[in-house]
Amino acid sequence: MSTLPNSLQNLIEQLSHFPGVGKKSAQRMAFFLLKNPREDVVALAKAIIDIKDRITECSQCHNIAENDPCVICTDMKRDRTTLCVVQEAMDVLAIEKIGYYRGLYHVLGGVISPLNGIGPDDLNIDSLMPRLEGIKEVILAINPTRDGETTALYLSKILKVKGVNVTRIAQGLPIGIELEFADELTLTRAIEGRTKL
Amino acid sequence: MSTLPNSLQNLIEQLSHFPGVGKKSAQRMAFFLLKNPREDVVALAKAIIDIKDRITECSQCHNIAENDPCVICTDMKRDRTTLCVVQEAMDVLAIEKIGYYRGLYHVLGGVISPLNGIGPDDLNIDSLMPRLEGIKEVILAINPTRDGETTALYLSKILKVKGVNVTRIAQGLPIGIELEFADELTLTRAIEGRTKL
Repeated sequence: MSTLPNSLQNLIEQLSHFPGVGKKSAQRMAFFLLKNPREDVVALAKAIIDIKDRITECSQCHNIAENDPCVICTDMKRDRTTLCVVQEAMDVLAIEKIGYYRGLYHVLGGVISPLNGIGPDDLNIDSLMPRLEGIKEVILAINPTRDGETTALYLSKILKVKGVNVTRIAQGLPIGIELEFADELTLTRAIEGRTKL
Repeated sequence: MSTLPNSLQNLIEQLSHFPGVGKKSAQRMAFFLLKNPREDVVALAKAIIDIKDRITECSQCHNIAENDPCVICTDMKRDRTTLCVVQEAMDVLAIEKIGYYRGLYHVLGGVISPLNGIGPDDLNIDSLMPRLEGIKEVILAINPTRDGETTALYLSKILKVKGVNVTRIAQGLPIGIELEFADELTLTRAIEGRTKL
């Protein structure tokens, strides 16, 4: 590696911090940038700093936003009686993409994870409570992981005390999968959650 | 997608230009940067511009370098009678990593590819000729693709005219693979190139 210029080695090191990007991919990315025209590379560097300068967190739903409150919280055409609780801002994006849900969101910023020392106080739960006024249904769209389940259980308990209708997104077989390839827990949940036809 | 801030959408678009990075990976990378401390993100942006400012091409071997001529071309401890011809600067890195080869390099900057309109004049072939003085062996370490083979054939012809000893890196089974999983061409090459024990 001694023949690699320091600046390139430094960039490869930094690129390899990205999730899912190993040393080899980082290397390919760095060499790609080297071959790219200077203006494209400068534009990328600018775009990277731009998100830090321009993007903030919505003080209401904790989603990422260029304005506070965000475009979803201020959109009067949305159903303001339904609140969808998600783990991360990326999850809002995933749900928005399908265009089916028209209510509001609340981003927790993580899940309760005793092993990682993350408790309810580390999440955006306190700020959820004042938002419940006028809400008819809270949909828990938290990832079906162990920590996600714990978090959903915790939230459903404190939300039910407040008299809110709490639902959880369905668990079952993903579309297109063959039954024999489904893992046991998924198959169990699919049978447990069977619906009448 | 309308809920995604413009600056973030712009960054995702730019990140997805990287080789092997799709829309989803670019999205994950952008959200990763959003969560990262500002100084780390600024450092990445700086590292990206740095390679464009600092890295040049060695005028002798056409490898990437921070100085011209590069550290390999100026290293008097290296074997100056052997020249290894590779396709891209990344290939120099791959060979240097194993630490076995101690000669010099020459980076072609591509391969002859009639389908893509790339001929010998588009590659660093002219600059190879004056470097042959004192060279006892030219190793063609060009990728074993169709265009790579064409290029190796072309080079070996013009090099032999100059009276240089030309070799080609071996083709055969990669280590660890089981014979039954090797493709036909690889297996053919492995049998053709069998060595005496």
